Amino acid sequence: MNTYGKMIKLSIFGQSHSPAIGVTIDGLPAGFKIDIDELNSFLRRRRPGQNAHSTRRSEADEPEFISGLVDGITCGAPLTAIIRNKDARSKDYEQLKDIPRPSHADYTAYIKYGAAHDFRGGGSFSGRLTAPLCIAGGIFLQLLKSKGIRIAAHIAQIGKITDRLFDPVNAGKDFILIKEDAFPVLDIEAGRNMMAAIEEARKAGDSLGGIVECAAAGLPAGIGEPMFDGMENRLAAIIFAIPAVKGIEFGKGFLAAELKGSENNDAFIMKGGKVKTRSNRHGGILGGITSGMPLLFRAAFKPTPSISIEQDSVSLSQRKEVKLSVTGRHDPCIVPRAVPVVEAAAAIAIYDALVYNKLIIK
Amino acid sequence: MNTYGKMIKLSIFGQSHSPAIGVTIDGLPAGFKIDIDELNSFLRRRRPGQNAHSTRRSEADEPEFISGLVDGITCGAPLTAIIRNKDARSKDYEQLKDIPRPSHADYTAYIKYGAAHDFRGGGSFSGRLTAPLCIAGGIFLQLLKSKGIRIAAHIAQIGKITDRLFDPVNAGKDFILIKEDAFPVLDIEAGRNMMAAIEEARKAGDSLGGIVECAAAGLPAGIGEPMFDGMENRLAAIIFAIPAVKGIEFGKGFLAAELKGSENNDAFIMKGGKVKTRSNRHGGILGGITSGMPLLFRAAFKPTPSISIEQDSVSLSQRKEVKLSVTGRHDPCIVPRAVPVVEAAAAIAIYDALVYNKLIIK
Amino acid sequence: MNTYGKMIKLSIFGQSHSPAIGVTIDGLPAGFKIDIDELNSFLRRRRPGQNAHSTRRSEADEPEFISGLVDGITCGAPLTAIIRNKDARSKDYEQLKDIPRPSHADYTAYIKYGAAHDFRGGGSFSGRLTAPLCIAGGIFLQLLKSKGIRIAAHIAQIGKITDRLFDPVNAGKDFILIKEDAFPVLDIEAGRNMMAAIEEARKAGDSLGGIVECAAAGLPAGIGEPMFDGMENRLAAIIFAIPAVKGIEFGKGFLAAELKGSENNDAFIMKGGKVKTRSNRHGGILGGITSGMPLLFRAAFKPTPSISIEQDSVSLSQRKEVKLSVTGRHDPCIVPRAVPVVEAAAAIAIYDALVYNKLIIK
Amino acid sequence: MNTYGKMIKLSIFGQSHSPAIGVTIDGLPAGFKIDIDELNSFLRRRRPGQNAHSTRRSEADEPEFISGLVDGITCGAPLTAIIRNKDARSKDYEQLKDIPRPSHADYTAYIKYGAAHDFRGGGSFSGRLTAPLCIAGGIFLQLLKSKGIRIAAHIAQIGKITDRLFDPVNAGKDFILIKEDAFPVLDIEAGRNMMAAIEEARKAGDSLGGIVECAAAGLPAGIGEPMFDGMENRLAAIIFAIPAVKGIEFGKGFLAAELKGSENNDAFIMKGGKVKTRSNRHGGILGGITSGMPLLFRAAFKPTPSISIEQDSVSLSQRKEVKLSVTGRHDPCIVPRAVPVVEAAAAIAIYDALVYNKLIIK
Repeated sequence: MNTYGKMIKLSIFGQSHSPAIGVTIDGLPAGFKIDIDELNSFLRRRRPGQNAHSTRRSEADEPEFISGLVDGITCGAPLTAIIRNKDARSKDYEQLKDIPRPSHADYTAYIKYGAAHDFRGGGSFSGRLTAPLCIAGGIFLQLLKSKGIRIAAHIAQIGKITDRLFDPVNAGKDFILIKEDAFPVLDIEAGRNMMAAIEEARKAGDSLGGIVECAAAGLPAGIGEPMFDGMENRLAAIIFAIPAVKGIEFGKGFLAAELKGSENNDAFIMKGGKVKTRSNRHGGILGGITSGMPLLFRAAFKPTPSISIEQDSVSLSQRKEVKLSVTGRHDPCIVPRAVPVVEAAAAIAIYDALVYNKLIIK
Repeated sequence: MNTYGKMIKLSIFGQSHSPAIGVTIDGLPAGFKIDIDELNSFLRRRRPGQNAHSTRRSEADEPEFISGLVDGITCGAPLTAIIRNKDARSKDYEQLKDIPRPSHADYTAYIKYGAAHDFRGGGSFSGRLTAPLCIAGGIFLQLLKSKGIRIAAHIAQIGKITDRLFDPVNAGKDFILIKEDAFPVLDIEAGRNMMAAIEEARKAGDSLGGIVECAAAGLPAGIGEPMFDGMENRLAAIIFAIPAVKGIEFGKGFLAAELKGSENNDAFIMKGGKVKTRSNRHGGILGGITSGMPLLFRAAFKPTPSISIEQDSVSLSQRKEVKLSVTGRHDPCIVPRAVPVVEAAAAIAIYDALVYNKLIIK
Repeated sequence: MNTYGKMIKLSIFGQSHSPAIGVTIDGLPAGFKIDIDELNSFLRRRRPGQNAHSTRRSEADEPEFISGLVDGITCGAPLTAIIRNKDARSKDYEQLKDIPRPSHADYTAYIKYGAAHDFRGGGSFSGRLTAPLCIAGGIFLQLLKSKGIRIAAHIAQIGKITDRLFDPVNAGKDFILIKEDAFPVLDIEAGRNMMAAIEEARKAGDSLGGIVECAAAGLPAGIGEPMFDGMENRLAAIIFAIPAVKGIEFGKGFLAAELKGSENNDAFIMKGGKVKTRSNRHGGILGGITSGMPLLFRAAFKPTPSISIEQDSVSLSQRKEVKLSVTGRHDPCIVPRAVPVVEAAAAIAIYDALVYNKLIIK
Repeated sequence: MNTYGKMIKLSIFGQSHSPAIGVTIDGLPAGFKIDIDELNSFLRRRRPGQNAHSTRRSEADEPEFISGLVDGITCGAPLTAIIRNKDARSKDYEQLKDIPRPSHADYTAYIKYGAAHDFRGGGSFSGRLTAPLCIAGGIFLQLLKSKGIRIAAHIAQIGKITDRLFDPVNAGKDFILIKEDAFPVLDIEAGRNMMAAIEEARKAGDSLGGIVECAAAGLPAGIGEPMFDGMENRLAAIIFAIPAVKGIEFGKGFLAAELKGSENNDAFIMKGGKVKTRSNRHGGILGGITSGMPLLFRAAFKPTPSISIEQDSVSLSQRKEVKLSVTGRHDPCIVPRAVPVVEAAAAIAIYDALVYNKLIIK
C-alpha cells in the first residue's frame, strides 16, 4: 500500500502521467514554519533534467500546498501537497502495455491489476513518485534539524567505482563535504570517475547501478522498539519503497559476516562523561535501538532497467517472444538523484520513531 | 513492538528467564490440522544443545497449545503456544546489569527501560525469542506447503567460507539437498570447512558470523503491494527482527550495484506456455510484486557478540571503563541455528502477503 | 488521525478554508468503472445551499480526480479526488480564534494545536470534510451495489418528531420510498412536520438534532471479525467521525436494555431453504459477525451548536467570561444533509470488512 | 481480530473451554509496580459465582504472569498473563454444535469458521474472554490512577429500573458511593429493586438487560485525535468488544437528538482560573478531543440470550426447525459483572490515547 508510518501517516498518490502526484502527511506538529525555499532547494536535488546524467524530462516540481498550512505554518490538520504533471508524453509508452520491459514492474503490475493498470511511464511504479516522498522527507528533515538531528547521504559506489565511506564514529563532520551537491561524494576524484562511467554507459545505451550511504548524526540513544519495530526494520521497510533498491545493510552489514566477534564487537568507552563505543561497526543500532552513535546504512540500487540496447521480451497478447527497444527519456544511472530520496525516506522513518519514543514534543 | 502482520497478527512474548515464552497467532484459517510431529521436528532444528557448535543450554522447547486448537485442528480463535523456561541460570548474568556486553542490546535496553529491564540472559532481546517465532513460522510453512509453496534456507557463508548459492531459476530442485539437515549446505565440502572454522573459533573463545540464503518456490506471480508493502519491504521488516541480522539483499542484491543494465536485466521468455524470465537476478520480485520466479534473499548475521575473550566496557553505575569477560553458555556461531528461523520469518511474511492478496481462502 | 481502514486505506485532508479538501483511497480494485454522474448526484445530496433548511454557502463540490483513474476506470493506484474551496468568507470567523463557540471543537482544537490551529470555519473539524468522505463512500456504494449490496438511510427523528423505522426483517423493500430524496423519510407526514420544526428553529435562531437510521440489505452472513473488529466496532469507529454524532445503536439498541431475553431473542427459522431469524432485534449482527439479516443501526446527532442566540463563552486571551453571538451561514439542522454521509461512512466500513473476508475479489 | 491499540498492543486469546485464556500487553512502561492484590480484587468484581445473580461456574481467575514482570515490576517486555480453565463442563454444549442458540454467536461463528469452530461454551465469543480484558484494564486503571485519572462505572439501568446518573460536571465525587461494590449503584433503593427484578427473571428462566454508565475524572483537555481517532471512536471500538453491548452514547447521547441547540450547548465559563463548561451535555468530548470535563458514556447491554425457556431454532445438519432448551449455568443478567469490564475497556482506550498524546511518559 502507499501509506507509511505509526505516529505520522504518510499517503502518497499519483502516477507518472496522472493529472497530479502528491502526498498527505497526517500527524505533523502544529505551529511549525516550513522553510519553503529550503524545501524547494531540496526537491531540486532529485529533479530530472538537471544535468547530462539524468533524464531530459523537465518539470518544475514545485509543490502546491492544498491543506494543512496557514501562512506557511502547519496547523495540525493533514498537510497535502500536489505537483501537477505537465510534461508527460504518453504516446511513448503505448507499446509497453503489451510488451513488458525487462526488470521493470510492467509485467507484475499487469498480473496484479490487469489491463486497467496505468502503463504510461510505469504508472504508480515510476520513480516520479519519489517526488512526493521528497516533499514529506524534506519537511521532516527540517523538523529533525530543529532538534539537532542531521541526515545526509552520498554516492558510495557507481558501478565498480567506490567513494570512501563516512567516518563511522564521526559521520557528522563529513556532512559539510557533500552539502547540497548535485553529485555528492566525499572523494572528488572518485566522483569524477563515476561521472565518466555514467557518461560512457549513456553513450552505450546502457545503464549503471550503485550504492548510497546514509548517516544520521545527533540521534539520541534509546530510539526504536524491539523485534519487529527496530530501527533496522523501520528503515528497511521504507527504503525498499524506493524503486530499484535491492539491498540494505547497517554498520558493517554483509562484511560483518566475515568478521570474528573479537573483530566486530564495539567496545564501550567513556568519552566526555558519556557512554560511547570506540568503533561503530554496529551502525548506531543495537537490538533495534539507537546507541547514540551515528546511525549508518547503505542501500544498493540495481542499474536502471531502461536501456536502449535491444532486449528480449514477450508479447502478452500474442504469447510469444519478441524483441524490444526501450525509447523515451531515461537516466543512465539514477543513483545521484536517489541520494536525496534516501535522505528523505530516512528522515520519515527516524522522525516517526522519535515521536513514538516521545522525544519530540508534538 | 512485538507484533507483526496485516492479515495475520503475531504477538511474541517472553524473556530469556521469564516463566515462559510464547506466541499468539490471530488470523489462522479455521479447520487446518497442524502436524504437531512435523512442527516439533522443525523446532528441533533451532534448538540449542544439539551439537558441539551450539550453546549447551538444553531445553525441550516443545510448545504447549493453550488456545486456538481443538483436537489438533485450528478453530479460528487466536492460537497461543507457550514454552516453559526450565533451565535458566540467572546468576550467570548478575554482573551484566551494570556492565553492558559490547555489541549486545544490554546498553540500549538500559537506556530505553532503565534498571527495570530484565537483563537476565538478554531479556526479551535474547535469541531464545526466536523459538516462538519458529512455532508460528512452522505452522505457516505447513499452511504454505498445503498450497504448493515451499520455503527453504541454507548456510551460504560462515566467516569467509562460502557455500554455492541456490539455482536462481530453479531453486526448488536444490531443496532436496538440505532437507531437515542440522547443518544445511548445498556443497558438503564447504560445510565441513565451515564446521572446522566454527570449532576453531570456539576453542579461541571467539565467534563467527555468516550469511543465510533463503528461497521460496511455487509462489504465484502478483503477490505484494506497491511502495511500502512490497515483498522486499515486508520480508525485510520481519528478517531484521532476528537478532544479529545486519543486512538483507534480494536477487543479485549488492552485487547488482556493480552490474550494467544489460548485465542485470532479466529477459522475459515463454516457457511451457507461461511467461518466465531467462535469468533471475531480480530475485523473483519486480516493483515489490512477485514475478512467479523463485523468491530469493540473503540475510547477513554478525558474529555472536558473546565471546569469552576479555573486552573493554564500562560500569554504568561508576561511569568508568572496566574489563569484561563474558561467561555463560553461548554459540560460537548462531548461523546454523538461524537457518530455520529465517525460513520461519519468511513463511510468516509470505503467508501474510498471500492472504492479503486473497489467494489463500481463509 | 484522518486515516481509516484495514484493507482499504482512506486518507481525508483539508480544512474549511484551505485551498482544497479531498480524499485518497488506497486499495480500490483495478478495472472498476466509476459512474461519475451517479457519484455527483450522490454528492449533491449532502451539498449545502440546496434548500431553505441548510446553510446558504454554495459550492459546486464536483470532485477533480487527480490520480488513480484512467478514462474513468480505476487503475489500481491510489485514487485521489479534490474539491477546491471557492466560496469561503474567512473574515466571518476572525473573532472565534479567541472566543470558542460553545459545543464546537474550537476550544479543544486550541488546546491541542494552539494558536496555529486553522480556526476559519472550524478548520478540519468542519462538517465540510464530510464531502471527501462522501466521495469515497459514493464510490464504495457503487462497488457494493455491483455485488448486490445496497445501503440506505433516512431521517428517523428530528427533535421530538419521529419517522417510522425500517422493517427490520425486510429493510430493502423500504429503500424505494426514500431513493435520492433530499429529505428522506418513510412517513411523508412525519417529514412535513420535521421540515416545519426546522423552519421554526431557524426563525428562532436556534437549531435541532435528530437521529439517522441506516440499513444494509443483501449482506452475506459471516462478515466481521470477533472482539475488536466486529461490525459494530468498525461501524462505530467510522460513524463517530461524522461531526455531531453522540451515539450509535444496533438493532434494538438501547431499547434492548429494557427487554427480557424471551422478548429480545430472535428465533432461527428456515425460509426458502435458508437459515434466517423470525425477528431482527439483533440488527443483523451476532458476535460482531453478520447474520445475513439486514444490518441496522441508528446514529444520534446533537443539535447544530451554531446558533444565533447569544451565548456565554470566554475570551482565551483575556481569561474572562464574555458574550458571544455566532454569525455566519449555518444549518439549523444538519440531519437531512447527514443522511448521505451516514450511508457513505457505512459503505466504507462494510466494504472494508467484506474485502477482509475476501468476498469481494480485488 | 483480537488485538487492540495504537501505542499499546493488546492481544487476547483463549476460548471458554481451552486449556487457558489470557492476554498479552505490549507497550507498558518499564518500572511500574503492579499492585497484584488490587488487581485480583478488581478481577473478583467480574468473577462468576459471586452471588445469587450470576452463573454458578466457579473459577479462581487469578492470573499467572508468564512474561513481562520481574519481581512484580514491569520490565518493558510484553506482559502476558494467563488463567487456566479448570471448571469447564464441555458436555453441556454438545448439542449446540448443530442447533444454534438464538441471539448467540453460535450461528455466525459456524458460518465463519465452519464445524471447526470451538462451540464449547461459546468458544472465543464467550463472556469468559472479558477476564483477560479485565487483567489488562486493571493494570491500566492503576497506571491512570498514578497520574490522577480515575475511571468508575455503575449500573444505570436493569430492565426498566433506573439508577440516577453521575453528576456530569463533578462525576468524581460520586465515585466514592460505588467503590468496589459488587452491585454498584448510586441510589441504593434502585439497586434493591434491580436485584429483585433479576431474581424474578432467574426464577422465570428468563433474563434481563441493562445500561452501564461510565465516567473518567481527572482527564486533561486535549486528548484524542480528530475524525477517525476521536475519543468516541476509540471508546466505541473497544466497548463493542464486550459481548451483548448493542449501543453506546456520550454525554446526552440519544437524548441530545431531542434538544435544541440552545438547550444542549454547554457555555464556557472561567472557574478557578481555568476554562470549564457550566454544564456537560457534551460528555467531556468536543470534536473527538477531551475538554477537561468528566468524560461520560453509557453502554446498552441486551438481555443474556441464554434462557431456559424453550425457544425456536434450527438444526443446521437437518436443515429443519427444532425446539431448543438452553441448559447449563448462566447469568440471568450480566450487567452487574459487566461494570468492571466497562471500566477496564475504558481504561485501555483512554491510556492508549493518553500515550499517543505523549502526556504519560513511558
